[in-house]
Amino acid sequence: MGRIICCGLGPGDPDLMSVRADRVVRAAKHVAYFRKRGQLGQARRIVEGMLAAGVSEYPMEYPVTTEIAFDSPEYARLLAGFYDEWTERLARLARAVDIVVLCEGDPYFYGSFMHLHARLQGRVEIEVVAGIPGMVGCWNSVGRPIALADDVTTVLMGTLPEAELVQRMQNSDALVVMKTGRNLTKIRRTLAAAGRLGDAWLVERGTMPDQRVARLADLAEADAPYFAIVLVHGQGRRKEAVP
Amino acid sequence: MGRIICCGLGPGDPDLMSVRADRVVRAAKHVAYFRKRGQLGQARRIVEGMLAAGVSEYPMEYPVTTEIAFDSPEYARLLAGFYDEWTERLARLARAVDIVVLCEGDPYFYGSFMHLHARLQGRVEIEVVAGIPGMVGCWNSVGRPIALADDVTTVLMGTLPEAELVQRMQNSDALVVMKTGRNLTKIRRTLAAAGRLGDAWLVERGTMPDQRVARLADLAEADAPYFAIVLVHGQGRRKEAVP
Repeated sequence: MGRIICCGLGPGDPDLMSVRADRVVRAAKHVAYFRKRGQLGQARRIVEGMLAAGVSEYPMEYPVTTEIAFDSPEYARLLAGFYDEWTERLARLARAVDIVVLCEGDPYFYGSFMHLHARLQGRVEIEVVAGIPGMVGCWNSVGRPIALADDVTTVLMGTLPEAELVQRMQNSDALVVMKTGRNLTKIRRTLAAAGRLGDAWLVERGTMPDQRVARLADLAEADAPYFAIVLVHGQGRRKEAVP
Repeated sequence: MGRIICCGLGPGDPDLMSVRADRVVRAAKHVAYFRKRGQLGQARRIVEGMLAAGVSEYPMEYPVTTEIAFDSPEYARLLAGFYDEWTERLARLARAVDIVVLCEGDPYFYGSFMHLHARLQGRVEIEVVAGIPGMVGCWNSVGRPIALADDVTTVLMGTLPEAELVQRMQNSDALVVMKTGRNLTKIRRTLAAAGRLGDAWLVERGTMPDQRVARLADLAEADAPYFAIVLVHGQGRRKEAVP
């Protein structure tokens, strides 16, 4: 009886993978990973050059998305079917061998694998290896503390309704905004409405060789960064806080 | 001219240190770390057995705290003096050698080293190595996703005023409460007032050999966990969210 080992790979730099993840990836005989059709996939890219010779690869390609709206019930059904199908395939494979599922960041923090994790409960043994979340890599790329002392840190998805974004952006010391992509214009507008655009950073491909760190306000409107996170640093609510 | 390398060690399990941190720690000739007087110190404990023979150690001991209230102006002055002093000592040492400062979790996320980081700017070259934050280790110890889909995640310090804690606990999907220690009774009371005590977990010494994972409501009032974080999991605001 095999296991499924969901391996958090960290933010992108393979050197920031945990010692355990490094060992698991190099020893893997079967690896699965999510990717968009026609792309190598971010998780697979991180382990480039680390996989053993003869490893079996199982790319889990998201259903085609060009013809159907992302937020339609039809796409949700398609996606549920996709997760169901891969649940069956991984459960079947794990009867005989160990499968390593490659996951960017930390699997338990907004990770796509959780859709399979929920479905696989009770059917197969699952081990999860923690990783440095993508946002941590991004604030390390800026090189300043994201939060200090009594700061409140809020992690928001760019997919949230505009009014909610503004209210939460006004109401937190440190901010992390994920799922930026097509929501970037909205994120910029809501940060401006909350009076925080001037302090916002955009980090694209944080910790990767082609990373970009820029003030969000300096970015051209037409610029469409890929794999990006927006950050606003807390200032430390007290100075010289007691540790 | 040497450098100061502030090395994030992750949540506690040395196997969850990054590949880079592992290399930096094993190669270090001079290591500094914070600790409370009379204790080995959490950062130093994580690297036990990894340091090279003949390494020079610089324990940075916090000023005595038993006689002065933690939140008094006098203690704040004492602490500022302590950080000033170590800034001078590390800057002087780094003229000749590389110093590795050992830090639990991720240095940029509420890390004590940031008090020195701010003071050392422009005086000496500083490199920071990202780590898995303590909270990530803790939610991995529970073994369930902390946040999914469009969940909002809020990180709160137990030191915040009671009314603010209640309001923020009501107002977020996923919750992480740090700086628990002497604030645990207040945290329990505020979670109850926010209607979330039943869903709260306490993780003590997450990822360490003697870790404890318990429902906060099941803990005896007199129990005083050490090095603990409180978690409330988000439920995933949408199901089958688009990745």
